Formats: sequence, structure tokens, C-alpha cells
Amino acid sequence: MSFRASILTLYPDMFPGHLGQSLAGRALERGDAAIEPVNIRDFATDRHRSVDDTPAGGGAGMVLRPDVLASAIDAVSPEGDTRPRLLMSPRGRPLTQARVRALAEGPGAVIVCGRFEGVDQRVIEARNLEEISIGDYVLSGGEPAALILLDAVIRVLPGVMGNAASGTHESFETGMLEHPHYTRPQLFEGREIPAVLTSGNHRAIDEWRAAESLQLTRARRPDLLGPEDRDG
Amino acid sequence: MSFRASILTLYPDMFPGHLGQSLAGRALERGDAAIEPVNIRDFATDRHRSVDDTPAGGGAGMVLRPDVLASAIDAVSPEGDTRPRLLMSPRGRPLTQARVRALAEGPGAVIVCGRFEGVDQRVIEARNLEEISIGDYVLSGGEPAALILLDAVIRVLPGVMGNAASGTHESFETGMLEHPHYTRPQLFEGREIPAVLTSGNHRAIDEWRAAESLQLTRARRPDLLGPEDRDG
Repeated sequence: MSFRASILTLYPDMFPGHLGQSLAGRALERGDAAIEPVNIRDFATDRHRSVDDTPAGGGAGMVLRPDVLASAIDAVSPEGDTRPRLLMSPRGRPLTQARVRALAEGPGAVIVCGRFEGVDQRVIEARNLEEISIGDYVLSGGEPAALILLDAVIRVLPGVMGNAASGTHESFETGMLEHPHYTRPQLFEGREIPAVLTSGNHRAIDEWRAAESLQLTRARRPDLLGPEDRDG
Repeated sequence: MSFRASILTLYPDMFPGHLGQSLAGRALERGDAAIEPVNIRDFATDRHRSVDDTPAGGGAGMVLRPDVLASAIDAVSPEGDTRPRLLMSPRGRPLTQARVRALAEGPGAVIVCGRFEGVDQRVIEARNLEEISIGDYVLSGGEPAALILLDAVIRVLPGVMGNAASGTHESFETGMLEHPHYTRPQLFEGREIPAVLTSGNHRAIDEWRAAESLQLTRARRPDLLGPEDRDG
């Protein structure tokens, strides 16, 4: 069974975007994953096709109406659909590689892309939307965030990565940042590849990489480490 | 002066991607920002146009060669170019809204998109690349991450947001997650808009929103709060 994502958006032309190329593009072509954008505006009920209105209580920007969005969600995800319903939002819980892997093991996702100032809180509650944030910065809308989530998920679907080993030693899969990499040429602008890496001593190489990985994580992301690894 | 981004990538066709539409698309059309993708492969020197090679010390995947990437960087960013050089990488420091604002105040950026297993460490050091991560998950490459960074930066360039007020009260701009939003209809599936928001009492509305914002941040992102705000 393939991973099926229904995207609720006001910008359906943003999909598949960069997912149409490279690794994800080949997965979509093979049918390992499917991305179905749906225009929220198609569910507006007035003659102006309005989807938003001013915020109750005042303030800048516009808010996505709960009734229009609920109709759109119900149309793409009728009762019995077991896919999780996600809302891309800076208010959400941060996306993690563990959540990416869990999504990839499931049947797909219904992904709501917010725009304007936000989405009416009542539809978030009534349709049980899980708010997910891809990072601590603000985007023009939920679409770029949805493309990121899908890129991460499609990458780990069975059969998508050419080399099955690639990926398992990467940053966040081990709980640490990845060690530095080197390749040819042996000498670059006076800089040599560290001797241990060309020694042929695999145990020494593994130890060097683990030490480098720990040192980098301590310097940049001590928050990823348990208390016992945090100090040098 | 407009914001100018040079993108070093093996997938130049991924740009401008979703940035060609909506808010960012209009900014690009007006010339408030420019995005110039450059194919790293154009700087390969052998007849196979190789850009990568196997990792020194063994392991899965391929590593981007330092000499090819250095030539590409030097071509788009000659001496005197004051733009910061960024490398999108899960090993980087997490992108923040403060870094987004700082980039938007500068002349632009040179953005290197990694692919394969990684980039040779020596070119990161020799060309002073600042590694930036958009979140704790792994992507197919640096391109989707570069599109996110650019979306966030272009959004806050002067004149890009129609309503200047929109944005300043948003999540991360205040150090807290944003309060819930509501709009018409007054009654949605038996759920009312909270009475305070339709009271016309602006002081009470501000207090309610601040309290909701604090409560949500405590529940989902206590890491954003100082010790004095963390407990209810």
C-alpha cells in the first residue's frame, strides 16, 4: 500500500513543487507515494468564494473560516479514513525524525495548510487537527512546511532510498549530529584528509567518527544529549 | 537594494519552486528579491562531470568534492562579496526567526545545498560556510531547506507583507506561541466564539489572548519560556 497525502490548500499549484524531482519525484512516479492537492476555495458557499474573515476581537490579518475548512476536510477524509489530520502551524509541536518515521509507516496524511493570520480554533478541535511545526520561524503559509514534511516522509518510505544503509547513521537517527565527511582529492588547498580515515583501521575510524560526532553535538546541540554526555 | 540569493545546487530546476507564487512570487516579480540557482556540476573538471566521490574511511553514500564546490562558490561569490555563505545541513545550528530577520536586513546570501551523504569538511572550513538546520529531521537534500529559509526571509523584507502590522504578534516574534483565532460564523457546529472576543472590551481581549498564549506555550513549548513563566 502506498502513502497517500491529501493537501488542503489555497495554493494547489504549489504541489508537488520540488517533490516532483529527484528522490521524491521518482517515488511519486513509481506510485510509492501520492500527493493530492485540494483547493479549500472549492468549498466556499458564497458567490465571492470567501474562505476567510476578520478575527473576532480585532487585530491584523484574516482567519480561515471553520465551516469552509470543515467541509473541505470532510470531503477528502470521510468517516473511516484512518489517516492522521495534520495542520502545519508555528504553534504546533516540533516535527521530529521519530514522527516522520511513524507517519511513513502509516497510510498517509490529510495535511491542512494555514494561510493568513491563522485557522479558526473550533475547526482544529472539531476535526481533531494535530498542529505540527517544522521550526521556530514564520513562513508565508503552511504549503512550504507541508512540502518539507512530505520530503522527509517520502525519503524514508520502503524502497525509496537507493542504498538502504544510507540514512541510518545520519543526524537525528542516532540522536547525535553526524561526524565530518571527507573524500578525494587527498590534498585540497593544503588541507589533508585526517590520517585515521585512510589508515584502513576500521575500529580506529569508528572511534574517531563517534568522538567527532559527540564533540560537534556538544558544541552545537547540547539539547540533544543526555546529562552524562553533555560535558567534555 | 534588493536581497540577492545565489543558490549552489545539483537541482537548479527546484528553484524558485513554491517561491514563484503568492507573497514571495510577487516580491520576486517586483525585484525586491532575486534567486539565482547555479549548477555545481558546471564546475566539475573531469569528462564525466563528477561532483562526488566515496567517503574517506568507508561508509554508505557519496560525499561532495571540496575542489568542485570551492570553484562554484568562488565563481558566484568573489572576494569583496559581503553576503554570508550558508550550508543547509542537519548538522547546523537551528534556524531562528532572529537569524531570518538578520539575513533579511543584509544584502543576500550564498546558499549551498548539500546532497548525498554530505559535503567535504575542508571546503566548509576553507570557505567559512555557516551550517544552518531548519529542524530536527532529515531531508532528501539542502534544496527544500533553502526554499524554506528564503520563504521566511522574503516574507519579512521591507514592503513584502501587505499589512505591516501582520506578523509582529506572531509566534516566535513575541517569544511565545500565538493565541487561538476565531472568525465568523458566530456558531459553528454548536461551538460559540468565546464571549470575551465579541465583548468590545479591548483590555479584556488583550488579557485573554496573553493568557491563552502563555498557557499554550507552557503546554507545547516550555523550552521557549524563561523559568519564571514555565509553571502555572
